[in-house]
Amino acid sequence: MKKFQAEIDVMPKKEILDPQGKAVTGSMKNLGLAEIHNVRIGKHITLEIEADSAETAHSKVDLACKNLLANLIMESYSFSVSEVA
Amino acid sequence: MKKFQAEIDVMPKKEILDPQGKAVTGSMKNLGLAEIHNVRIGKHITLEIEADSAETAHSKVDLACKNLLANLIMESYSFSVSEVA
Repeated sequence: MKKFQAEIDVMPKKEILDPQGKAVTGSMKNLGLAEIHNVRIGKHITLEIEADSAETAHSKVDLACKNLLANLIMESYSFSVSEVA
Repeated sequence: MKKFQAEIDVMPKKEILDPQGKAVTGSMKNLGLAEIHNVRIGKHITLEIEADSAETAHSKVDLACKNLLANLIMESYSFSVSEVA
């Protein structure tokens, strides 16, 4: 069994309003950072997984995203898997 | 003025307990994914910024992280800035 590390980003879909991001965009002005626009806030998830191959690890992480980590109606996800020495 | 896109990860520090991540690690077993361990959950933030140079954009994003996006007592952050065509 090899050990892999996955880095997953789960973001609200573009068509979906992101109220938390909108609030933060507004706060940037008060901080003197008016040149910052279009803040969007999602989740960053790291995890460790044991698998025989990178392909198996990849498909298991995909399953975890689909079934637990992302709400596919409102969110999209992307991830990368790398082997840990 | 050029336009840049920043991708920011804000994660709970290693020494800090991540209860949300612990709960998700537990749920993985119920999903039949017991080979997934050590789930940690943080924030992924994307934003657009206008600046004269990549260096200026970089330092402004750093300022935004320090002053608003990350709680440096409990969280650490990393980010990348890339120019948008």
